[in-house]
Amino acid sequence: MQKRDELYRGKAKTVFHTDSAEHLILEFRNDTSAFDGEKIEQLDRKGEVNNKFNHFIMQHLEAAGVQTQVESLISDTESVVKKLDMIPVECVVRNVAAGSLCRRLGVTEGMDLNPPTFEFFLKNDALHDPMINDYHIVSFGWATEAQISRMKELTFKVNTVLSELFANGGMILVDYKLEFGVDSAGNIILGDEFTPDGCRLWDKETRNKMDKDRFRQGLGSVVETYIEVAKRLGLDL
Amino acid sequence: MQKRDELYRGKAKTVFHTDSAEHLILEFRNDTSAFDGEKIEQLDRKGEVNNKFNHFIMQHLEAAGVQTQVESLISDTESVVKKLDMIPVECVVRNVAAGSLCRRLGVTEGMDLNPPTFEFFLKNDALHDPMINDYHIVSFGWATEAQISRMKELTFKVNTVLSELFANGGMILVDYKLEFGVDSAGNIILGDEFTPDGCRLWDKETRNKMDKDRFRQGLGSVVETYIEVAKRLGLDL
Repeated sequence: MQKRDELYRGKAKTVFHTDSAEHLILEFRNDTSAFDGEKIEQLDRKGEVNNKFNHFIMQHLEAAGVQTQVESLISDTESVVKKLDMIPVECVVRNVAAGSLCRRLGVTEGMDLNPPTFEFFLKNDALHDPMINDYHIVSFGWATEAQISRMKELTFKVNTVLSELFANGGMILVDYKLEFGVDSAGNIILGDEFTPDGCRLWDKETRNKMDKDRFRQGLGSVVETYIEVAKRLGLDL
Repeated sequence: MQKRDELYRGKAKTVFHTDSAEHLILEFRNDTSAFDGEKIEQLDRKGEVNNKFNHFIMQHLEAAGVQTQVESLISDTESVVKKLDMIPVECVVRNVAAGSLCRRLGVTEGMDLNPPTFEFFLKNDALHDPMINDYHIVSFGWATEAQISRMKELTFKVNTVLSELFANGGMILVDYKLEFGVDSAGNIILGDEFTPDGCRLWDKETRNKMDKDRFRQGLGSVVETYIEVAKRLGLDL
């Protein structure tokens, strides 16, 4: 597959057109950003680690029956993905309270959430990705009720599958963000990425942070820790 | 009924115990506040106008089959209400975009919302009443799923009843906030108040503001306009 011109440059990934109208190439860069892009650094090997980590997780999800955008790894930092019409919302599930939830609702980090919470956020940098709900999504036409219901169903299915995967590696899946798109047949497909950049993972025993909070909070060993997470899942990077 | 000691003093109302364990007295004060209590003024006659307006609206809702907390007017500024175990959330329905929705989602004031949106907010001054969703309410134990569903059903029923009432008076019910409580039998009952302090009302033709935005935005004639709203509904104050 031939890489063509750039379609979109995000904070950590670049999306390219290809010679196939049905496919795109995702390039995972070393750029690492936090706080709405206020903190940005280049971290050696991060593009490669996230590209391979994402491919590994997406394959695991496919095997569990969750359709994903990913087709194949084509280089250390690039993957071929199916072209989707992305829905402009983020789906967040939280098993344990951390991050913005604690600030917004005044709850203590580390509190178990039972049942887990689900939140929608609007993808809009200028508005700082505000929390939204089903009614906003329908009223403003960002997705239909059926699409909302399917995104929730799939996001919770991912929770079951990945909570077990990480638990087997001695980790707690604290929370994560997913993005979905619609394929040419109208199916809701998991897009974007699943890497330690977009979730929180804690060591089960020590509760040490093994995700992008290491970068946000200046804890160091960011990429080294992502590699450790992968290793615990059986993926040598 | 005898008024006893103060139970709670809010920004614009004071709640008193009575000699009946099943009843409270609500006193509507002249205090008018906005922006989380940053702007506070005493507006002449406002307590009386809101007390009588609230009684009028609650009677109208009762007649339409919505159970409310209000029992009777006992003075210009006081009403006897059933004691409820209040649920600490606000239920907001919006028919037209205005206020915080426009700031949060970057939409233009005055845009029709079709279907209307529903939002939950946590009643917590220190956290500035953050928006929450059904999952937060269940996970943090603020209400049950059945109570959530009943609050939504009743809030939308109120929309049907009051949108028609205000339309007949040449006004648009732009948005409003309701609070519910649980009675001793476990029923969800409409509590708190419905006055121009907690809703937005626009003149149908001119779209002039006829609610607390007159106070927030320093437009003047606050109480005079509330009296005009009441008059258009057939209530002379």
